[in-house]
Amino acid sequence: MIQTPYLLFLGDAPDQLAAKVAQGIKDWRPENAVGQFRMDGCKADMGLTDMTLQEAKAAGAKTLVIGVANRGGVISQEWKKVLVMALEEGFDLASGLHNLLRDEADLVAVSQATGQHLHDVRIPEVDYPIANGVKRKGKRVLPVGTDCSVGKMYTGLCLEQAMKKRGMKATFRPTGQTGILITGDGVPLDAVIADFMAGSVEWLTPDNDDDHWDIIEGQGSLFHVSYSGVTMALIHGGQPDALVICHEPTREHMRGLPGYSLPTLEQVRDMALSLAKVANPTCQVIGYAINTQHMSEADAKAYLADVEARLGLPATDPFRFGAETLADALADLT
Amino acid sequence: MIQTPYLLFLGDAPDQLAAKVAQGIKDWRPENAVGQFRMDGCKADMGLTDMTLQEAKAAGAKTLVIGVANRGGVISQEWKKVLVMALEEGFDLASGLHNLLRDEADLVAVSQATGQHLHDVRIPEVDYPIANGVKRKGKRVLPVGTDCSVGKMYTGLCLEQAMKKRGMKATFRPTGQTGILITGDGVPLDAVIADFMAGSVEWLTPDNDDDHWDIIEGQGSLFHVSYSGVTMALIHGGQPDALVICHEPTREHMRGLPGYSLPTLEQVRDMALSLAKVANPTCQVIGYAINTQHMSEADAKAYLADVEARLGLPATDPFRFGAETLADALADLT
Repeated sequence: MIQTPYLLFLGDAPDQLAAKVAQGIKDWRPENAVGQFRMDGCKADMGLTDMTLQEAKAAGAKTLVIGVANRGGVISQEWKKVLVMALEEGFDLASGLHNLLRDEADLVAVSQATGQHLHDVRIPEVDYPIANGVKRKGKRVLPVGTDCSVGKMYTGLCLEQAMKKRGMKATFRPTGQTGILITGDGVPLDAVIADFMAGSVEWLTPDNDDDHWDIIEGQGSLFHVSYSGVTMALIHGGQPDALVICHEPTREHMRGLPGYSLPTLEQVRDMALSLAKVANPTCQVIGYAINTQHMSEADAKAYLADVEARLGLPATDPFRFGAETLADALADLT
Repeated sequence: MIQTPYLLFLGDAPDQLAAKVAQGIKDWRPENAVGQFRMDGCKADMGLTDMTLQEAKAAGAKTLVIGVANRGGVISQEWKKVLVMALEEGFDLASGLHNLLRDEADLVAVSQATGQHLHDVRIPEVDYPIANGVKRKGKRVLPVGTDCSVGKMYTGLCLEQAMKKRGMKATFRPTGQTGILITGDGVPLDAVIADFMAGSVEWLTPDNDDDHWDIIEGQGSLFHVSYSGVTMALIHGGQPDALVICHEPTREHMRGLPGYSLPTLEQVRDMALSLAKVANPTCQVIGYAINTQHMSEADAKAYLADVEARLGLPATDPFRFGAETLADALADLT
């Protein structure tokens, strides 16, 4: 568990897109971000107060989160200077970079000397159990996608916001690096050892109040041959009461797999539901979350209307048009 | 890759069942076993020549394989003496124990001094790629089960034997510890990191002759919530041309999951085939392998006849009655 609030490290980001982790924190947990730290030449700006390490410390920040992608496959010496100073000022460090903080001898030495933590959220920090399949209290919803990277994390975060606004008890449960940095906790599922995948999802979504919803971050797709095993573990470890089918309509083939076309919404609905019923016989598909970012507003609305008419359930782009109809459908299940 | 042939270490096995790894090697790769090494009090016997380390070395053995389960969660000092002597005599060591050889400081020291290898087959020794889904040459068959431990490995090994007897090109591809020790190679799939599961199966079953069959060892079950993600990765990484459905009819609930009843053969057939067609649209279910070890011969034959009549495909207990009908069905696909 990463200590909040954060100071967001934007480094020397070449553009706004390079700082998408910081953007996610700013968008979804603004209360977790007391300010931003930018180096010379930084082209990203979260609209937060620029702070020195000392100013952020005084403002209560506990962890410096690397909110930007690194370049050239290394953690540069310029970054290192800031990271070392941050440890010396009493910050923990948190990173989702492929280059692990723990592999940098200088950072390890300073973290040991100062007693500060290095959080590499790509790597599990917990020994997860093997899944036992025992029915847990509380409710769970899982977004499942036609493909990877179709908006499952955003769907989950939008749902959490809409459900809370409606007065429902809801907790977003991250299963990927960005989600973990946003909330400060979660399971880096793609890095979990095969035998413990479903168990890690059970661990992430324990017994809870009868009217509480865990919103589990989805990963991969049952129809994406590289990662379908991860999706399967989410469906069985999460034992969801509800599924939301996620889709990006303009994709020409499965992400990274030129020979593979996307499944239909009906195929994903039927396959995911059949499998989900193994762990939770009462599971239902409650709606469709369509990522319309590459469509005009008119096209997007026509597409959503068509999905609703064809499939008989609410369809929305939760980021563009809100997740209220999906939240309503979940409320009806409680 | 473990160097063959082996000397089989039976230690102080309390009974024959404790030495089931050695039994598997003896049954399926007798040419890999030049003899057995038994300590005082050993109650297991593979019917092989008892040999000292020196005798086995002279007979050509290259690796001492721990063919027996250990007791009390430790590798005992009595075992250690033999293992150290074996390293000093020029043997590699191979083990599928939960206690890793590499975690024993004395074994590590002697292996480094002698230049001999310690193979812990529970742990991957390869950096597997992420699956790319590209269609590979050659044919592949995958046993999929209604449950864990219903005889998928034995089905695969029986199939390999029957196919070779028929003159077909066939290679058993292990995905579990016992299988890896039997053949000397494979992927310990349950220990692979989630993102690389399907890729490890692609790696294990590369391009081959058009008329060559890889027989991929199955794991878990799509209907076993603890391990279904591993099964999923086999189905998509293996891109099988043929599936054999495996079942043990006397099981009262899913292994280790008292609240979960077994799926029907029809459910497994339909689910596994739908998912397999994502990676290989021409995949077919070619027959049923029924583990009848807890049934009388008459009951077993009646059960198999019923399955054949009901499902319209060959059904056999490959270990008890042979795998010829399944091999015939595969030959028809080539």
